[in-house]
Amino acid sequence: MRSKAGKKNGFLYATIAGRIEHQISRQLLLPGDKLPSVRALSHEQGISISTAARVYAELENKGLIGARPKSGYYVRRVPARRIAVPGSKPPLKQLKQASVAEMIAMVHEHLTEEAVLRLSLATPPLSLMPQERLSKSMMEAIRSSATSNMQYEQVQGNIALRRQVAKNAFNWGGRITEEDVVTTQGCMEALVFCLRALTRPGDTVAIESPTYFGIFNVMLHLGLKVLEVPVHPRTGIDIDYLARAADKVVISACLFVTNFSNPAGGCMPDDRKRRLVALLAARKIPLIEDDIYGDIYFGDSRPRTCKSFDTEGGVLLCSSVSKSLAPGYRVGWCIPGRFKEQIIQVKLMHTISSATPTQAAIAHFFAAGRYDLHMRRLRKALYTQCQLYTQAITSFFPAGTRISRPQGGYTLWIELDKRINALELYRAAIDHKISIAPGQLFSTDARFTHYIRISFGLPFDKIVEERLNVLGALAGKLLKQERQD
Amino acid sequence: MRSKAGKKNGFLYATIAGRIEHQISRQLLLPGDKLPSVRALSHEQGISISTAARVYAELENKGLIGARPKSGYYVRRVPARRIAVPGSKPPLKQLKQASVAEMIAMVHEHLTEEAVLRLSLATPPLSLMPQERLSKSMMEAIRSSATSNMQYEQVQGNIALRRQVAKNAFNWGGRITEEDVVTTQGCMEALVFCLRALTRPGDTVAIESPTYFGIFNVMLHLGLKVLEVPVHPRTGIDIDYLARAADKVVISACLFVTNFSNPAGGCMPDDRKRRLVALLAARKIPLIEDDIYGDIYFGDSRPRTCKSFDTEGGVLLCSSVSKSLAPGYRVGWCIPGRFKEQIIQVKLMHTISSATPTQAAIAHFFAAGRYDLHMRRLRKALYTQCQLYTQAITSFFPAGTRISRPQGGYTLWIELDKRINALELYRAAIDHKISIAPGQLFSTDARFTHYIRISFGLPFDKIVEERLNVLGALAGKLLKQERQD
Repeated sequence: MRSKAGKKNGFLYATIAGRIEHQISRQLLLPGDKLPSVRALSHEQGISISTAARVYAELENKGLIGARPKSGYYVRRVPARRIAVPGSKPPLKQLKQASVAEMIAMVHEHLTEEAVLRLSLATPPLSLMPQERLSKSMMEAIRSSATSNMQYEQVQGNIALRRQVAKNAFNWGGRITEEDVVTTQGCMEALVFCLRALTRPGDTVAIESPTYFGIFNVMLHLGLKVLEVPVHPRTGIDIDYLARAADKVVISACLFVTNFSNPAGGCMPDDRKRRLVALLAARKIPLIEDDIYGDIYFGDSRPRTCKSFDTEGGVLLCSSVSKSLAPGYRVGWCIPGRFKEQIIQVKLMHTISSATPTQAAIAHFFAAGRYDLHMRRLRKALYTQCQLYTQAITSFFPAGTRISRPQGGYTLWIELDKRINALELYRAAIDHKISIAPGQLFSTDARFTHYIRISFGLPFDKIVEERLNVLGALAGKLLKQERQD
Repeated sequence: MRSKAGKKNGFLYATIAGRIEHQISRQLLLPGDKLPSVRALSHEQGISISTAARVYAELENKGLIGARPKSGYYVRRVPARRIAVPGSKPPLKQLKQASVAEMIAMVHEHLTEEAVLRLSLATPPLSLMPQERLSKSMMEAIRSSATSNMQYEQVQGNIALRRQVAKNAFNWGGRITEEDVVTTQGCMEALVFCLRALTRPGDTVAIESPTYFGIFNVMLHLGLKVLEVPVHPRTGIDIDYLARAADKVVISACLFVTNFSNPAGGCMPDDRKRRLVALLAARKIPLIEDDIYGDIYFGDSRPRTCKSFDTEGGVLLCSSVSKSLAPGYRVGWCIPGRFKEQIIQVKLMHTISSATPTQAAIAHFFAAGRYDLHMRRLRKALYTQCQLYTQAITSFFPAGTRISRPQGGYTLWIELDKRINALELYRAAIDHKISIAPGQLFSTDARFTHYIRISFGLPFDKIVEERLNVLGALAGKLLKQERQD
C-alpha cells in the first residue's frame, strides 16, 4: 500500500514526464537539446530530487532522452513521423493446410551461424538473465532433496513447483491449488499435450492469424486443420468472426495467445476475454490459452487471463519460464481445468514424468522471491528496448512502414509497403548476416507477404542499430526495384 | 591388461568357487554348514588370502553363502528343487487392441502409498545411486558453461552428451559419431518420437509378447495396432514367427527390447540379432530397438545390439540413463539411422529442445569416468539381488512355480500354477501392502493370466524376504482354494 505522499509523487512524476514527452513529440524540444539537471528540474517544478530523477528515468526507459557521462540528459533522436499500427486484415474462409516445415527449417537454418544477428528469435537476452541466482537455486534444491532430485517425479509434476505456479496464478486472477496444475517440458509440450487430449487427426482447431509458426508445425504433425481467426494488434481475436465461423465449422478447440500475442503483440481487454470465454463455454469448445508472454507486460499490472473468467473448466492455460527466465530448463505447465485426467494420461504416455532437477530449481527460484525481483528488471529493460527498436525502425525504414505498438512480449510486427516481398527481404538480410522472420511464416496463406517480425530481445546497441539501418536500406532498395519494374 | 599371475589367480578362484557351488547344489554342503575361514581355505587350497577372500565374495554375491558377524561363512538356504524356465507360448494371430489404461492406472494407483513395498517397479535402487557424484557433475557442468546451461540446446541435443553417447556406443559394437545421435527426455520419449516418425494411426507395429505395459499405452494413444510376437525368456523374439506374420500383415515398424527384455529378461544371441536385422532390412521394416537395459548385464561383457549389425540405417536405437543412473533426470537418446531428419522434426515440434542442465550433467558424469565406475558396482549388486530374490521365491512359492533366469535387467518373470489368477494374487498382495505386476499387464490377451513380474531393484533385506514369504503363502492359498472349488 502506498502512502498519500507516495501517491502524490507518483501522480506528479507522471504529469511532469508526460509534459516533457509532449514537448518532445511536438518538437518543442529537439534531438540534441540539453535538459535541465535533476537538481534544476527539482527546483523548477517544486518536486523532490528523487521524483525528478524518476521523471528522467521514465523518459530514458521510453527511449526519449539519453544521458551523456558528466554532461547530463539530452533529447534523443525521435520519430519524425507517426507510424500507424498495422490494420486487422479482413476475415478469411477456412484455409487448407500448407506444408510449413520448410519455411521453419529456413529460419532455423541460419541460427547456428555465429555471425548472424538473430532478430528473428523471440527469446530473452542472456545479459538480463540471473545466471548466478538460478544456478544457486539449482544447487540448493539438490542439496535439500533426500534423493538429490535423481528420482522420478509424480506424473502430475513436482509438488513444490505446482504450489508456486498456483501461488503465482493469483497475479492473473487465478484461484487454484497445486492439484489443478500439471507440469510439462516447456510450454510447447503443454500445447501438444492439450491438442493430443482434445483432438483427433482431421479435426479443426481455431488459431490466431497471424500466429507463431511453431503452431503450424504442430498442426501439420498432428494432422489437424486450422481455422485462422483474424487478430487485431491491439485487442486480439476477432470474436464475432469466431462466432460466425463456429456456426459453419465444427471447431474441436481454440488455441489463442491472449496476452501479447506473437507476432502482433496485442493484449485482449478483460471484457473481451470474458466474452470469449462465455462464447466458447456456450458452445462447449475448449480454449487452450497460451499465456507464455503474460508476465512480460509493459503496463502497470499483470493482465488477467481467460482462465480467470472460466467457471466451467473449459480453459486449459499453458505457460512456462522459457520467455522470462531460462528457456534451456524446459520447465512449463498446464492448468487443464476439467481435462486434467486426460492431460496426465497423455503425459504419462509421452515422458512418464518431467525432469526433477530443473523443476525443483525453478520452484526454489520462485519460492525464494528471486523471480519477482528478476521480472521487474526484465520488464523495464524490455520496455526500453522495445522503444529503442521502434525508434530505429521508424528512422531507417521507408515511408509507409507501419509498426505494432506491443504492450508486452518480445516482438514488433512490421507492415511494409505492399510491393515488398518479405521473403526477398529475408534473403537479402541473410546475405548481410541479419536474420528476421518473414510474414509468410505466420499464416498458411498469402496475407502477410509484406510483413516482417523483428524481436527486440537482443539488447539495443551500436551493432543492432547499424543492422536495422542496413535492413531499412534493403527494404528501400526492394521498393525502388519494384517501382522500376 | 591383467598379468599372467592375475590370470592364474582368476582361473584358480573361479575353479574353487565352482567346486564349492557344486558341493552346495548336490547338498554335499547343507544350509547352515560352517565353511572354513578365509585363512584356512587359503592354506587348504594353496592360494593367497586375497584369492580365498574373492572365492567367498563371489559365492556370497551369488547368494549361496552368508557371513555371520564374528563367526565366519555359512551355507545359506538354497533352492531344494530346480525351477524350470517359463516356456515360450505358441504364436497367436494378430490381436485386436484392448484398453490397457485402466490396468496401468491400477498398478500406479498404489505407488504413492508409503507403506507399500513396490516389487512392481523396475527402477534402480536409490541406495546404489551415486548421488553426490552426480550432483557434483551437475554443478561442474553449470559452472563451466558460459550461459549456466540456461539457454536452448540445439534441437538435435547437447553436443557433449551426444559425443559421450557415441563414445559409449563402442561397448555395444556401434561405430557412430555425435552426428548420429538425437537426445530425448528419457527413453520413453525416444520411443514415442520413433513411432510418430514411422507410423500413422491404424498402422501395425510388431512388439514382443510379453512386453512392458507402457508400450501398450503408447500404442493405444497413437491409434496403432499391435502384433504380438512371442519371445523366449532366453533367446528373445521368435524370428520365424515374425517372418511368417510379415508375409500376411503389413508391419510398419518393430519395437523390440533385444537385451534383457522386460519382463522376460532374455538376451538375443548375436547370430539371432544379425538374422533379425537382415530379415527386416530385406523387407524394409524399420526396427526400433529399445536398449535401455543393455548396460545392466550380469555376464562378462556388454551384449551387442541389433544396431551394431545394421548396415542400411534401418535400426533406430533408443536408450537412456533411467535404469542405470537417474530416472528423474529424464535424459535419453535415439540413434535413428536413416530416419534422423524425421526424428529431429518430431522433436522440434514436441519440445523444441531437451533440458540443458540435465543433459550437460550426464555428459559430464560420463566424461569424468564416473559412469563406468558406478555401473561396475551397480551390476554386481543387482546380480546378487537377482540371486537372493530367486532363492527366496524358490523357497516360499508353491511347487510348480517357474522363474526366469535373467542375464541382466531388473525383473523376474514368474509362471505360477495355471489355476492361479495373477490379478487375484495382485489384489491379495495389495491388502498386505505388497505391489506386484500381474501378467495381465504384459499382453492384450489372456496368455499370461498366471504370470507375475517381480522387480529385484529393491535391496534384498529382512522386509523383502518376509514380504516374499507372505506373497508365496498367498499364492499357495489361492491354489488351495482353486483345488477346493
